[in-house]
Amino acid sequence: MAKIKVIKIGGNIVGDAERLKKFLADFSAMKGDKILVHGGGKLATQLASQLGIEVKMQEGRRITDQETLKIITMVYGGLTNKNIVAHLQNFGCNAIGLSGADANTIKAHKRLVRDIDYGFAGDIDEVNSKTIKGLIELGLTPVFCAISHDRNGQLLNTNADTIAAEVSIAMSQHFQTSLYYVFEETGVLRDVDDKDSVIRDIDQIHYEKLKHDGIIADGMLPKMHNCFQALKNGVDKVCIGNEQMIDDSTEKFTTLTL
Amino acid sequence: MAKIKVIKIGGNIVGDAERLKKFLADFSAMKGDKILVHGGGKLATQLASQLGIEVKMQEGRRITDQETLKIITMVYGGLTNKNIVAHLQNFGCNAIGLSGADANTIKAHKRLVRDIDYGFAGDIDEVNSKTIKGLIELGLTPVFCAISHDRNGQLLNTNADTIAAEVSIAMSQHFQTSLYYVFEETGVLRDVDDKDSVIRDIDQIHYEKLKHDGIIADGMLPKMHNCFQALKNGVDKVCIGNEQMIDDSTEKFTTLTL
Repeated sequence: MAKIKVIKIGGNIVGDAERLKKFLADFSAMKGDKILVHGGGKLATQLASQLGIEVKMQEGRRITDQETLKIITMVYGGLTNKNIVAHLQNFGCNAIGLSGADANTIKAHKRLVRDIDYGFAGDIDEVNSKTIKGLIELGLTPVFCAISHDRNGQLLNTNADTIAAEVSIAMSQHFQTSLYYVFEETGVLRDVDDKDSVIRDIDQIHYEKLKHDGIIADGMLPKMHNCFQALKNGVDKVCIGNEQMIDDSTEKFTTLTL
Repeated sequence: MAKIKVIKIGGNIVGDAERLKKFLADFSAMKGDKILVHGGGKLATQLASQLGIEVKMQEGRRITDQETLKIITMVYGGLTNKNIVAHLQNFGCNAIGLSGADANTIKAHKRLVRDIDYGFAGDIDEVNSKTIKGLIELGLTPVFCAISHDRNGQLLNTNADTIAAEVSIAMSQHFQTSLYYVFEETGVLRDVDDKDSVIRDIDQIHYEKLKHDGIIADGMLPKMHNCFQALKNGVDKVCIGNEQMIDDSTEKFTTLTL
């Protein structure tokens, strides 16, 4: 089975022009089939503030009203995605930028209202792996922004970590798939104040213990949930660390397996 | 040889939500292979004004400075392109939104400075018809916004009429290509004050005469130039009219041939 790597980058890289360029050069140099997924929170928040649009948060999550969705579509789908693609082209990587509406790659539904109305936030129903595979067979490298659609004409703001996990799961029907979460730390840390305390390998039993002991907590929990969801649904390997892990210039990152 | 239709829509449709939706339904219903190219001037001007960015024009043409390019990338590449794609998906058309950077479909260079510095305006060097054909063979309908790139990481604002003409020329290597310019009039008018005075057929000799007689003048001249450029370079037929021509609900439009 052919191999593919799915790499997710977050706002800390996307929002830093020099760091992003360096990352994209390294990403372009990676051999083999690959997919990039990017978030991009900070630029959207900046534009919202310039336009005098209030950012509504509830329990740490952004509420996507109509105006916020417009901003996300402009920044994630336009400014960030197209500039990433243009830079990848410069580095010789034949990238194609995609929202989940493009080629119907990611179909979702508007999150159901229970206690909180998240607005135009999407929960993913289906990733169209056949079409994504078709693009890859044309020699293209898909670059996803954090937007899906409901197939009824509505775009939906969708968590980039979740998109990366769901795309990886879908691609594992056709490829041996590795998922890389690039974030601000060198890996999952045993001690948040000690950057050298990276836990190198975590399996599910180990994870339960780390959760129980309070070592993995707060913001890491949804990310870890995405990781194990991916592993349980066909993804071969999930790695968490900073961008150095993708060009093999470090061995310091966390590898998750079942 | 298989047939393909390239349809270009301008700001008058893109900026009118209801009219756009109706057009996209009709576009989706069109049988056979097709490509959509859209402009979208008004929304970009609105956003620029909201952000307090001055729109710089010289001899009726927009000067694309760095800030203007950002707005164009957000509006054309993001908001407009992704919403068009989402609506087409709703109507059962498997659309894929593209800038010229995506899949390196349209390579251009920054317009050389002679008398006027147009800033980040692109003049097209090459349309990658092989990749576009590959996307069509995957069952996809390409939807181009008016942005190209220079393959050195720079996005470039590019006239949508010219993109439509150059894409048509490139596709005519693989398809019998018809190019449709949808605009505000029912066709090329003999008398601008008489909407019924559509000239049904224009060939090159006829065109020279109409120009000489001052019947075709001003803003129509660059559009007509694009049309005949397309015809001289392999495009089979060019039609100019309003959106009714694409669903065959009118016979009132102008057809250009060599």
